[in-house]
Amino acid sequence: MQTDIVRVELGSRSYDVRIADGLIDRAGAEIAPFLRRRRAAIVTDETVGALHLARLQAALSAHGIDSTALALPPGEGTKAWPQFTRCVEWLLDQKVERKDLVIAFGGGVIGDLVGFAAAVLRRGVGFVQIPTSLLAQVDSSVGGKTGINAPQGKNLIGAFHQPTLVLADIGLLGTLTPRDFLSGYGEVAKYGLLGDEAFFTWLEKNGPALAAGDVAARQYAVKRSVEMKAEIVARDETEEGDRALLNLGHTFCHALEHATGFGDRLLHGEGVAVGCALAFELSMRLGLCSQEAPSRVRAHLRAMGMKVDIADIKGDLPSAEGLLALMAQDKKVVDGQLRFILARGIGESLVASDVPGDVVLALLTDALRGR
Amino acid sequence: MQTDIVRVELGSRSYDVRIADGLIDRAGAEIAPFLRRRRAAIVTDETVGALHLARLQAALSAHGIDSTALALPPGEGTKAWPQFTRCVEWLLDQKVERKDLVIAFGGGVIGDLVGFAAAVLRRGVGFVQIPTSLLAQVDSSVGGKTGINAPQGKNLIGAFHQPTLVLADIGLLGTLTPRDFLSGYGEVAKYGLLGDEAFFTWLEKNGPALAAGDVAARQYAVKRSVEMKAEIVARDETEEGDRALLNLGHTFCHALEHATGFGDRLLHGEGVAVGCALAFELSMRLGLCSQEAPSRVRAHLRAMGMKVDIADIKGDLPSAEGLLALMAQDKKVVDGQLRFILARGIGESLVASDVPGDVVLALLTDALRGR
Repeated sequence: MQTDIVRVELGSRSYDVRIADGLIDRAGAEIAPFLRRRRAAIVTDETVGALHLARLQAALSAHGIDSTALALPPGEGTKAWPQFTRCVEWLLDQKVERKDLVIAFGGGVIGDLVGFAAAVLRRGVGFVQIPTSLLAQVDSSVGGKTGINAPQGKNLIGAFHQPTLVLADIGLLGTLTPRDFLSGYGEVAKYGLLGDEAFFTWLEKNGPALAAGDVAARQYAVKRSVEMKAEIVARDETEEGDRALLNLGHTFCHALEHATGFGDRLLHGEGVAVGCALAFELSMRLGLCSQEAPSRVRAHLRAMGMKVDIADIKGDLPSAEGLLALMAQDKKVVDGQLRFILARGIGESLVASDVPGDVVLALLTDALRGR
Repeated sequence: MQTDIVRVELGSRSYDVRIADGLIDRAGAEIAPFLRRRRAAIVTDETVGALHLARLQAALSAHGIDSTALALPPGEGTKAWPQFTRCVEWLLDQKVERKDLVIAFGGGVIGDLVGFAAAVLRRGVGFVQIPTSLLAQVDSSVGGKTGINAPQGKNLIGAFHQPTLVLADIGLLGTLTPRDFLSGYGEVAKYGLLGDEAFFTWLEKNGPALAAGDVAARQYAVKRSVEMKAEIVARDETEEGDRALLNLGHTFCHALEHATGFGDRLLHGEGVAVGCALAFELSMRLGLCSQEAPSRVRAHLRAMGMKVDIADIKGDLPSAEGLLALMAQDKKVVDGQLRFILARGIGESLVASDVPGDVVLALLTDALRGR
């Protein structure tokens, strides 16, 4: 299959997202034109490193690019000060200079952390994203949001730093666990829900094939997701307006992730799926959309074997009041008002900054009662 | 005396540097127009806090601005990960939001560290610089370079993040120790040396009055320095070209600071003065300028009672080779080549990226032999 190229248009910071099966084996040829000297520092995680690092380094080496690599522990816990400072100092030890490139080779955790490290290393060096998870390919590798988590909440420390190039190798998705794949699928579904009903309808039909491993379907879903993200980011790079639409489901998601310790109990994309279902339920309760919309969202997620309800999250959770307080610490707070992404229907999202707290509280109370 | 206003022209990121005696007492009036809600988080150091924090908070309070404050330990050692992460987490605990302002109230260490914290807090919040040292008023508070030191070298971790406003209160300079004042004077003299011979001549005449406390002379020197910096930064915000001229003396300075532990043995501005003298000596050895130029630089620094030679630095230093190796880890390395700011004469600096290592080594060897 042919390589899909999606251009992220951001003036002097524009870049390509290239999407193909087996792209990693052409990484040397893809990256070489952007290098001033033939060396690169790769940061990955231990899981991805064990599976794919030798292939990546061989592909670079084939084009005369020397590389060194650091493998951080896998998991969301890595995305915090200790591994971040370790990564920055390792890059300094590699004598990475201003015109060199850093390669972020892994899922969302690696992409966010390494992108942030590149943003602050010598006040900014370039970096290449090679996202290896579905979630990273359709979301976190594109758009320049980088960062780490704080004790106070997720992604509260970071920078806008656009990559120089993104290489999404569809073949790498074959080594994901079904759970990780479906977690990423939460973000894919989000794109249909926030802005493209036809894509959501396509997903209702092709989602099962995607999950089963259909490479062509996977490439189309990644391409369409990246197209939508690129279009929104080009309109609003630093989230002054429309970019907030990409956060459909995320205010709920971040509170749930916080409550479950940002770990294995609830993966990010799982939280997004549950959050999208809650956002549609909230939209319905506020009279914005019909009853059919949240039902259709829930039915598709259920058909894909995904977590849909708060009740699907194992273990203890805070009270409704506790979850609401966690939402209030989210970045998406302006003047103390909770901001939600709501919807008038499938594919028709909007930013609402005036959601009454009592309606949200009632929704969470009911959702927790379902447990 | 009247307030001087120097505009830093950077498109949507433009801002004023306001310079006056007693400006801190008008801080509430100056800052209020930039606030979305009447609150601000102040980060200072313990020394500045003890002297001036109550006055600043009273001035804010007089305009209905609630403030909270954090005082970090004084000294260059603060400018590293531990106090940086502490500052970021304190700001998160204060629930600073995207449209709030953080106030950096102190010298260069506080300005650099707090500016960097503002840069990465929620991917960027605004900040006001209230520089309290001469060095911070004429250099570090203007131009948006923020950051901390790494074990590998000075300012290797950071961001370009322009302030929203800079308030330089000349009166605060009255509480500086003579040594701290003269350290800042090293940067003032640098401006004359790099681009304005008339200003250097003015300094040769008025430097002693400045050091003795003449407020009008101090205000003029700060204004002229900030004008020169603003003009260069407007031309080249992220140091792709001309901004490097501001680093006159700094490649030597950073190596000497590194060798002396970034501490009390050699203050930054002292290192800049010694570095400027070395840069003019190097320029002369390379046949760029006459013998008179380095002599005139050294004579003025000596007349001001400042450190001039490497021999003026107490204690052990590395060998010439060791100092050269430290220079090679400086940010200002491109493709492994040492870049120096050199001069064709007083006020006529240039960027030289092809300086032969053996000439630098001979210069350092001779300078160390003088000890």
